[in-house]
Amino acid sequence: MTLAAPSQSAKPEEGRRTRVASSAGVRAVRALHKGQQTRAAILDAALALAAPVGLEGLSIGAIAEVLGMSKSGVFAHFGSREDLQIAVVREYHQRFERDVFYPALKQPRGLPRLRALFDLWVRQTALEIDSGCVYISGAVEFDDRPGPVRDELVQTVNTWQAAMRRAVQIAVAQGHLRPEADPHQIAFEIHGLILALHYDARFLRNPQGLQHARQGFENLLASHHC
Amino acid sequence: MTLAAPSQSAKPEEGRRTRVASSAGVRAVRALHKGQQTRAAILDAALALAAPVGLEGLSIGAIAEVLGMSKSGVFAHFGSREDLQIAVVREYHQRFERDVFYPALKQPRGLPRLRALFDLWVRQTALEIDSGCVYISGAVEFDDRPGPVRDELVQTVNTWQAAMRRAVQIAVAQGHLRPEADPHQIAFEIHGLILALHYDARFLRNPQGLQHARQGFENLLASHHC
Repeated sequence: MTLAAPSQSAKPEEGRRTRVASSAGVRAVRALHKGQQTRAAILDAALALAAPVGLEGLSIGAIAEVLGMSKSGVFAHFGSREDLQIAVVREYHQRFERDVFYPALKQPRGLPRLRALFDLWVRQTALEIDSGCVYISGAVEFDDRPGPVRDELVQTVNTWQAAMRRAVQIAVAQGHLRPEADPHQIAFEIHGLILALHYDARFLRNPQGLQHARQGFENLLASHHC
Repeated sequence: MTLAAPSQSAKPEEGRRTRVASSAGVRAVRALHKGQQTRAAILDAALALAAPVGLEGLSIGAIAEVLGMSKSGVFAHFGSREDLQIAVVREYHQRFERDVFYPALKQPRGLPRLRALFDLWVRQTALEIDSGCVYISGAVEFDDRPGPVRDELVQTVNTWQAAMRRAVQIAVAQGHLRPEADPHQIAFEIHGLILALHYDARFLRNPQGLQHARQGFENLLASHHC
């Protein structure tokens, strides 16, 4: 979104003009604020829609209908469906960081932080059992569709996987996991537990997935524990 | 497909009628054979199309175009798109059994068979990296779409998972894995390795997935080995 810069026309040397300019400034700020609110509302609606139907199920028309806006109103904020899809991936990633990554960083370095990352990730996956996960459904939707949406998804997933590997490295450095523990291998196996949980819980409706994922993580730690 | 029963009109007591009936019988058998061939060709084309675009991407029109048939010609074999989707799921499952399950059964009971099941499953997943896997993409497509296609998919996946659990049980019974090894837990973790391999290889284009999946399986066996 390109937001118009606030008016620069205010000249303090003249009383009436100053008041006029001030109120123009207030209006500009309010418009900016309103614009941001509308953009946030569109993103909210788009995320809620993308989770169950997928990024490819998103359309400007559907979002406009949900929000009672005109299609051109939505287009004013997102120039194309692709722009909207990319914005949804970024928003999903920011919320994932807010709900999983940053809270885990409050835990002490090493095993406590790695545990917190996994626990919060499992909780996030459990919350998404009714709605779907953009990282998982997006991977299937865009696995052979090159373009900027795929690139954005791959980049955000890679960022998250790098954070998991880093948490494993720190656990090794802290002496919590054995020196030969391979961060790539462990991050891969953790990702497998999350994917199997999502598959079992969301598709097969098997309530044991949560317990299996947690037990799998304990097994994994036990085999690499110092 | 309901196939017409071969003609029962041949009466051997009369020479000419017998010859006529025979040739009618031959024609009926040929027609039956031709019908089976056409059905198999439709299924082949549908599977090839479903792997990359998904079961929901299938259409009678697209199949007809690929095969140079009329849409009504395809409809004669599959009464609806849903019938075709179900037939594709069944065909995929039969091929999966042919390529993964039955060859593994030739290995001795216990660990050799469990290893063969995993190796062949990994190979199958590696082959599908360019095309996609109906079990994985189908799970995302049908996770919240109730109906007979979803039911068929769930049933075939459950059948396969039960076979994996049974292989683990036999490995325990043979004394190859510890008595406390939980078949549900181990089958869940194996499934996770396959899903992570598919995700990394097909979506992230990360060539390390194959090695990580195999190493993960070795780690899993090592922690339950007698």
